[in-house]
Amino acid sequence: MKDKKDKIVIVGGDLRQIHLANLYSKTAQVWVYGFEKNSQEFENTVQLISGIEERKTVLSDADFLILPMPVMENDTYINAPFSDQKLEIDVILKEVGTNCIVYAGKITSDLQKRLESFKLRFYDYLEREELAIWNAVPTAEGTLQIVLEELPVTIYGLSVLLVGSGRISRVLWKYLKTLGADVSVSARKHKDLSWIQLDGCHAIHTKELKTQIHNYDLIINTVPAKILDKTILEQVKPNALLIDLASKPGGVDFEVAKQLGLKTIWALSLPGKVAPLSAGEIIYNTISNMIEEWRE
Amino acid sequence: MKDKKDKIVIVGGDLRQIHLANLYSKTAQVWVYGFEKNSQEFENTVQLISGIEERKTVLSDADFLILPMPVMENDTYINAPFSDQKLEIDVILKEVGTNCIVYAGKITSDLQKRLESFKLRFYDYLEREELAIWNAVPTAEGTLQIVLEELPVTIYGLSVLLVGSGRISRVLWKYLKTLGADVSVSARKHKDLSWIQLDGCHAIHTKELKTQIHNYDLIINTVPAKILDKTILEQVKPNALLIDLASKPGGVDFEVAKQLGLKTIWALSLPGKVAPLSAGEIIYNTISNMIEEWRE
Amino acid sequence: MKDKKDKIVIVGGDLRQIHLANLYSKTAQVWVYGFEKNSQEFENTVQLISGIEERKTVLSDADFLILPMPVMENDTYINAPFSDQKLEIDVILKEVGTNCIVYAGKITSDLQKRLESFKLRFYDYLEREELAIWNAVPTAEGTLQIVLEELPVTIYGLSVLLVGSGRISRVLWKYLKTLGADVSVSARKHKDLSWIQLDGCHAIHTKELKTQIHNYDLIINTVPAKILDKTILEQVKPNALLIDLASKPGGVDFEVAKQLGLKTIWALSLPGKVAPLSAGEIIYNTISNMIEEWRE
Amino acid sequence: MKDKKDKIVIVGGDLRQIHLANLYSKTAQVWVYGFEKNSQEFENTVQLISGIEERKTVLSDADFLILPMPVMENDTYINAPFSDQKLEIDVILKEVGTNCIVYAGKITSDLQKRLESFKLRFYDYLEREELAIWNAVPTAEGTLQIVLEELPVTIYGLSVLLVGSGRISRVLWKYLKTLGADVSVSARKHKDLSWIQLDGCHAIHTKELKTQIHNYDLIINTVPAKILDKTILEQVKPNALLIDLASKPGGVDFEVAKQLGLKTIWALSLPGKVAPLSAGEIIYNTISNMIEEWRE
Repeated sequence: MKDKKDKIVIVGGDLRQIHLANLYSKTAQVWVYGFEKNSQEFENTVQLISGIEERKTVLSDADFLILPMPVMENDTYINAPFSDQKLEIDVILKEVGTNCIVYAGKITSDLQKRLESFKLRFYDYLEREELAIWNAVPTAEGTLQIVLEELPVTIYGLSVLLVGSGRISRVLWKYLKTLGADVSVSARKHKDLSWIQLDGCHAIHTKELKTQIHNYDLIINTVPAKILDKTILEQVKPNALLIDLASKPGGVDFEVAKQLGLKTIWALSLPGKVAPLSAGEIIYNTISNMIEEWRE
Repeated sequence: MKDKKDKIVIVGGDLRQIHLANLYSKTAQVWVYGFEKNSQEFENTVQLISGIEERKTVLSDADFLILPMPVMENDTYINAPFSDQKLEIDVILKEVGTNCIVYAGKITSDLQKRLESFKLRFYDYLEREELAIWNAVPTAEGTLQIVLEELPVTIYGLSVLLVGSGRISRVLWKYLKTLGADVSVSARKHKDLSWIQLDGCHAIHTKELKTQIHNYDLIINTVPAKILDKTILEQVKPNALLIDLASKPGGVDFEVAKQLGLKTIWALSLPGKVAPLSAGEIIYNTISNMIEEWRE
Repeated sequence: MKDKKDKIVIVGGDLRQIHLANLYSKTAQVWVYGFEKNSQEFENTVQLISGIEERKTVLSDADFLILPMPVMENDTYINAPFSDQKLEIDVILKEVGTNCIVYAGKITSDLQKRLESFKLRFYDYLEREELAIWNAVPTAEGTLQIVLEELPVTIYGLSVLLVGSGRISRVLWKYLKTLGADVSVSARKHKDLSWIQLDGCHAIHTKELKTQIHNYDLIINTVPAKILDKTILEQVKPNALLIDLASKPGGVDFEVAKQLGLKTIWALSLPGKVAPLSAGEIIYNTISNMIEEWRE
Repeated sequence: MKDKKDKIVIVGGDLRQIHLANLYSKTAQVWVYGFEKNSQEFENTVQLISGIEERKTVLSDADFLILPMPVMENDTYINAPFSDQKLEIDVILKEVGTNCIVYAGKITSDLQKRLESFKLRFYDYLEREELAIWNAVPTAEGTLQIVLEELPVTIYGLSVLLVGSGRISRVLWKYLKTLGADVSVSARKHKDLSWIQLDGCHAIHTKELKTQIHNYDLIINTVPAKILDKTILEQVKPNALLIDLASKPGGVDFEVAKQLGLKTIWALSLPGKVAPLSAGEIIYNTISNMIEEWRE
């Protein structure tokens, strides 16, 4: 039986980290730092660190330090949009006690070296598969929102192509089918093509994209590779809407799309934008799983 | 076998009527009047009436005159937002040949008298049930859009109450269930309560609204009656979002809602706003059904 | 506040009435008569009437008498398959106290006269819409069972026609669509055709049946009228399976179907056959609604 | 451009292989051997091998030899239930030309050695993932059939537990949810538990089975490991139905289940039993994919 509450410090981040702090404050002792511009969003069970001395004391004694997603604004500073000042990563890390475990999203190799140099244990929650699965939900909802805002027609009756059949696509095709769209999904493997058909969609082999893409009013890319290149984009219907959900460098040749006059929207990081509270809860659940596994 | 194309004149209206004109121009002779500000949206198979003399000639020989939804801007003028000038209803009607049939949306008793005084046959397409059913689709999609835009959380996991179990509600609950919301629907009749449960939602009797409404994060009213009055609104969760889809006077006591600090959105006429092309196609299909039935 | 338990007597019927008796025995005093062959199925809170004297006493003092569905085996006897002896309706009715209310399923005009002659108040629960809606569930499930048993192919990929778009059809198309069938539904009214399409099925006008029916591997009729006559049956695929769910006289010309060598199954009264406990619960819920309304 | 039709020989098997032969006969030259008891099921484009000499000639010149699933009845004979005589594997294999490729289902290590000793190239189509995915459909439909036949209640409202969250389970939970069951699914990994919840089911960690299993009316095991052992079976509701879909040795301790008086059905090889034509088509599609990949 645990007799003491965990001591958790949350440094930097946006509304997602604020909501995460509020959630942890129900069961743990929670301190936050770097949220001056939006501190009214915290529950009063969350303690705001007010100065450097307090920060040092709290960090030296913390059980867990939670950093944002992405953790870094650039090579030097923590991503802290609500902070009144720049938060240098090295300044923070050197104050952290060696018993503390650090959780952060998207740890670069540079950051990894710094964490190691401070002898800190650390985990990247962005690498957890359950986080990617759950993030598919706000991503799919945010995509629906874009489609609803952009198109002068209903999703019912729309001819839609999803490029790629991963997590986001699997969630999206369920939503779009129920809303009455005629949904095709492209993939390469027989296994993926089978699931697509079994769920009632048309399966398109990636190599058929060029000859099939002219059929679609809405094309949503989920694959982080330049699949939608010039030869394929040239076949797209003039009035079609393209949405690219792939992270940088994206899956659409935007230069070519622009030349062709195609309407293209590159929608990045939808969870934090369209549903920050849910996105915060997803990070909370993921870190909680990680802490639980670490305890076992 | 019909050997001549129908002559159809479309006077006034918004993007919906433009799209309707484009659709009819595939099979009929189509003239339009009152769209100067947006005439580039017409296919070139649609003929723009350019002056009063042409208008008189065309109207006197037309088979069908299609007026917008709602047909009137006020008691005197046709609803014609894209027209450079005001279109007086009486001026138009007196030029219409007596063989012409008039289709209009939301014919008031005043307009009915005018039509009768000109000895014209007329039908209100807003009274057709298939139009109401099909309009439930853009209405439900538009409602989803509002929810996605307004809430900082995903629809997945949301606790939703639909007040009323008519057409719009039936479409909405299917969408919301698939997106992972926990959906309750209120109704009065055993028959309606049965369908609600059979489709996997929680059925709430209207008389239980007062004691149950505190459970919901999102409340969507579809009933055109002041059901959500003070005694009920006082029980609503402070952070809940209320969307009223009922036409005037609406189903929410907005004055009280405001006093209570509840966020309330009165979303009227969604089809024309969120999906004007589809809304135009729905009117087109409905009038086509009416013409076909009239021919039989 | 009710201070006494209702006295309910249940005479005749099959497993459905046994389950109904068990359900009522949780909140009421329940006596049963005419179940000798299967009395071990009753909970021990249900009292078995053992002789004529006890029957007279209990019936004279009952609040509610519940008779089976259908209530009559023929013009003279109650439908009582589990009874050791014939139960004459007149014998039972004349023992019933005049304060008692009689609930029965499928009251014929002959029975109505008898009930009136005994000055009894009575209601037919088969006429309740919620019973018909809920019975659509076991009917649809029983239909699935027949299809699964009869066909050497999966429902996935099957081309199915539902004739009629009423309650049973509405439930069936949802199930068949999810299982991956390609579903068409026939109807006459624009309103019904609209709902069919809106739910993702193909809508076929009844007058197109003759020219379309050759496309289907499975044809399920739900309309109690001889729609599937010789001219239509002649167009059916030789290997197709026909299931008729319509009550007598059914919607298929069975004589012609036989001559054409078509495999036809006339599936009547599925709820009591495939899910007697659920069917009993549906009757229980319906009568409970009726009693509640009567009390108001 | 291919100018000659493939020569395909099919030896042994049940209705699945007959249907597979009929499908191949549309595009290839097809001979069959070992189907005397049911040869009327073949299309007349399929050639029945009538004697040993013809068999030798055909096998020596074949492009592809297709053997059944499972390929062997025992160590010596091919699985050929429709054959008038026993078909010894070695007799067949030694007549096969060395250019021929052999496709068979469930190739044992013993058979593998024989094929190698005859210098034949061979592939096991049972190891293809798309076959496993597609077989989930008839398996799930067959499971529905069993449930519908066995239970006296509707699936609507049933409390169901699926043990394991693999392919079959993923298909089953979609079907059961749509039919209105309350579905829980057990798994071990966060990733699997996430998908279960995201699809609207309750996720149960495998280690919670013991404390949760008393809640379910229907328990379907899909995991080929003895998870449902004595300590867990003792907690199962007396009236619950257990269906084990796991191949030998199964996932239920049947001995214990019997002692506890639990109704248990071990349903093996459902695709060939409930939908032999579809199961044949699945094998056909899989081998066609394999041939195509081999050609590339």
